[in-house]
Amino acid sequence: MEAHRINNFNPGPAALPLAVLEEIQENFLDFNGTGMSIIEISHRSKEFEAVMMDTIARIRRLLNLDDNFNVIFCQGGASLQFCMVPMNFLATGKSADYVDTGTWSSKAIKEAQILDKSIEVVSSSKDKNYAYIPQNIQFNNNAVYVHITSNNTIKGTQWASFPETGAIPIVADMSSDIMSRPLDVNRFGLIYAGAQKNVGPAGVCLVILRKDMLELIPESIPTMLNYTTFSSKNSMFNTPPCFAIYTVQLVMKWLEETIGGLEKMEVLNRKKAQRLYSFIDSSDFYQATAELDSRSLMNVTFRLPNEDLEKRFVQEAINNDLGGLKGHRSVGGCRASIYNATTLQAVEALVDFMANFEKQNG
Amino acid sequence: MEAHRINNFNPGPAALPLAVLEEIQENFLDFNGTGMSIIEISHRSKEFEAVMMDTIARIRRLLNLDDNFNVIFCQGGASLQFCMVPMNFLATGKSADYVDTGTWSSKAIKEAQILDKSIEVVSSSKDKNYAYIPQNIQFNNNAVYVHITSNNTIKGTQWASFPETGAIPIVADMSSDIMSRPLDVNRFGLIYAGAQKNVGPAGVCLVILRKDMLELIPESIPTMLNYTTFSSKNSMFNTPPCFAIYTVQLVMKWLEETIGGLEKMEVLNRKKAQRLYSFIDSSDFYQATAELDSRSLMNVTFRLPNEDLEKRFVQEAINNDLGGLKGHRSVGGCRASIYNATTLQAVEALVDFMANFEKQNG
Repeated sequence: MEAHRINNFNPGPAALPLAVLEEIQENFLDFNGTGMSIIEISHRSKEFEAVMMDTIARIRRLLNLDDNFNVIFCQGGASLQFCMVPMNFLATGKSADYVDTGTWSSKAIKEAQILDKSIEVVSSSKDKNYAYIPQNIQFNNNAVYVHITSNNTIKGTQWASFPETGAIPIVADMSSDIMSRPLDVNRFGLIYAGAQKNVGPAGVCLVILRKDMLELIPESIPTMLNYTTFSSKNSMFNTPPCFAIYTVQLVMKWLEETIGGLEKMEVLNRKKAQRLYSFIDSSDFYQATAELDSRSLMNVTFRLPNEDLEKRFVQEAINNDLGGLKGHRSVGGCRASIYNATTLQAVEALVDFMANFEKQNG
Repeated sequence: MEAHRINNFNPGPAALPLAVLEEIQENFLDFNGTGMSIIEISHRSKEFEAVMMDTIARIRRLLNLDDNFNVIFCQGGASLQFCMVPMNFLATGKSADYVDTGTWSSKAIKEAQILDKSIEVVSSSKDKNYAYIPQNIQFNNNAVYVHITSNNTIKGTQWASFPETGAIPIVADMSSDIMSRPLDVNRFGLIYAGAQKNVGPAGVCLVILRKDMLELIPESIPTMLNYTTFSSKNSMFNTPPCFAIYTVQLVMKWLEETIGGLEKMEVLNRKKAQRLYSFIDSSDFYQATAELDSRSLMNVTFRLPNEDLEKRFVQEAINNDLGGLKGHRSVGGCRASIYNATTLQAVEALVDFMANFEKQNG
């Protein structure tokens, strides 16, 4: 019997490619002829080593990484990176610049402050409730890095192009848009991404590290908080989150072999976002919340005429097999998250539903 | 077609109950009627909240936890706890006692030292290559906690009963024997356990916290390294490792409903270990490495007359569908890990194989 599946617009954990889920399911009791589940095999086995190496190789190919970069896997989500980044890169006497574009940037800033590190918030879009991405920012020449959040899931904004930082490496939280478009990694010192949007399930955090950043790390950082540990031990100082990494492998395989790489992924993502935004813009009933040039291709945030209608909208959508459309609890409203695995068909179904809902309630 | 399954003696990640794996597999495309996989649903959804609450409730029942204890889920394995414990509980002026019973204890000690915390190694079994568990240890009256490793996977030793520490709470790494026997939790301030032996898959670390320990935590601990965060936010300050927690839920359900609780689990575990140790003791070919009163019920370590035979033993075992019998790379030899999910039938199959191997090579 075919499984009942809905159109999933969850903000994360989020939709994953059906083919990936089916492959996991099919092999769950006997991984690769081992007679054991993927969650029962040793991380030191040749079978898991192969998973790890292939996952890394695929990420390297997709992002065009050269030997200057390492691919590592941490745990604790982006939230643990918020403290690992300043802990590793801001030794005494060093400082960094942060750009504040909403909740996640603010949390990253807060962790640097808890550690009593020297940072400056050089720009913020708080003045307009984070509805835009700042432009023409002046950075401090002596900053060790510039920290940004590439996509803001809650406010529905995204950096269309990255800020000009000269020789200063960018450190970016790309949890919600990594692998959604091609990337010039050479401008980045470190990229981190909780997997649970475009890359895999919750429980692993993908980190792309420019090797020269390791030279900044002071003595006396605890082993599991030190990027050198992950870099020198191929993320296997201790038992890594094997199942999550295995799922990432299959998602990367889907990106390479089914989608055809990040250029093609971007074309598809733009098509999905455009379909949704152009419908919203053509309506007086729905109102997009992000400024035009700062709109996210991943999280489309919008309001209805009032909160009662928003509540009814989310519930009726669920009744029509369209899930996850409630806005973040901190801002309310509605949000359609359309990450890589959300299909154009799902977006079409959503637009149809929105048109009908407007007809009945407008 | 029934899946090919072997007898799995892996040290961790390790065997899990087949019924658990089958339930995950069956529901993998449509969790609980949501039309989404367990790895695609929001951690804030009522469906995942129910998973979380039920997992915690089952752990509370299995361990007889009263309101003085919290059940929390961290990431980063026991290795991250090695630094979180002293970071949280050893503010300036406080000190702790550590007992060194092998690799894992030593790593815990090292992390406290990296943080420049005041600790004393009050006892060690290093003098006999960690083949025993120290007895009659003198602890410092002013120690904030006494740290032990309850079971030593590499050396095959285990605390048969826990040390007498008076009013000082024990902090224990129970990664490899939690839930294998009943436990008087009242002697412990904190228990931590990487899930990937008796509790679930790699990627989540179970922590049992006595609430009064929270009072020791100083200001300025990064949010994701602070036990208060996990305790006050029910382990959902950020996205938890949902799939790993879901698997833990099913393993706890199996422990409660199929096995019938920890008393019954211990009876079964003792039967398994006794079968294996008594066979080894009856043989001149196999040699157990741990001292008699310190033997682990979880990891049975033994040697053969020489390394060539050990190599052949491990390989022929694999050919006979008996996996994971190689000793840890740091010590060599052989090791049968017989955690909760390893059946008595699997142990019988191993003993039969060992007897045959001895006949042919002895």
